[in-house]
Amino acid sequence: MERTAIQHNPEVEWNICWGCGPSNEHGLRIESYWEGEECVCTWQPQPHHNAGRPNVLNGGIIAALIDCHSMCAAWDAFAQRDGAFPDMGTVSLKVEYLAPTPIGAPLQLRARIVELTEKKAVVNCSLLSSGKETARGEVIGVRIPAPD
Amino acid sequence: MERTAIQHNPEVEWNICWGCGPSNEHGLRIESYWEGEECVCTWQPQPHHNAGRPNVLNGGIIAALIDCHSMCAAWDAFAQRDGAFPDMGTVSLKVEYLAPTPIGAPLQLRARIVELTEKKAVVNCSLLSSGKETARGEVIGVRIPAPD
Repeated sequence: MERTAIQHNPEVEWNICWGCGPSNEHGLRIESYWEGEECVCTWQPQPHHNAGRPNVLNGGIIAALIDCHSMCAAWDAFAQRDGAFPDMGTVSLKVEYLAPTPIGAPLQLRARIVELTEKKAVVNCSLLSSGKETARGEVIGVRIPAPD
Repeated sequence: MERTAIQHNPEVEWNICWGCGPSNEHGLRIESYWEGEECVCTWQPQPHHNAGRPNVLNGGIIAALIDCHSMCAAWDAFAQRDGAFPDMGTVSLKVEYLAPTPIGAPLQLRARIVELTEKKAVVNCSLLSSGKETARGEVIGVRIPAPD
């Protein structure tokens, strides 16, 4: 059976988010899948996503990947538990940069929900290049009221 | 006297960083200036930089702005103290999202160096929209060896 990325669930395909929205043609367009308890994304940087040093991925792009992938995992976990995708926002993002992340090869994000309460999700996420962890982050997201 | 942005110092105008490099035509191209002890940047988001909710700036873009603006402040502080721009890398980034950041109006970043040792800089940075703080971050950057 072919799997569907969280972002391509018909209920959320309208998403225009620069990091994770299929409907944002200028964005990073990550695609996140569950593998058991882990939410996984493989993503190929573009050459212009580099840091100040050539062939190294920009740290802001890394932060964006960790934020959006983790929040999509939380979003889907809420939807699985409660039956609908809630409105959500990130309240806290922490990233540790462990080593330069090469820009030329596909990267992997691996996220795990470590806490899911009524309104809050805490997600840990690692970024790997060729199997080596180059950054790790913690994202805290909360349910927010729907817009007026 | 016309001021020059840190990023347009001829010694670093080669910079190809997606967040802060004048030589990256696909990047955010922030421009950072000192105002006394504060390093300040005014920046206008593009419509495609939005979050999942319309007219709100993406949190990854916010993280990228805080990272690059803070690191440019630290980079310049090292250069002023030591006489040359060192190689640097971010080791830690923390962002608190306090309120949605509107995408339509120019934003202001205000950073302050809180620690500058031989090899390490700690920078606090606020993001403001129309004078209201919508996010704040702490960036730790370190000097790294020059590439081979």
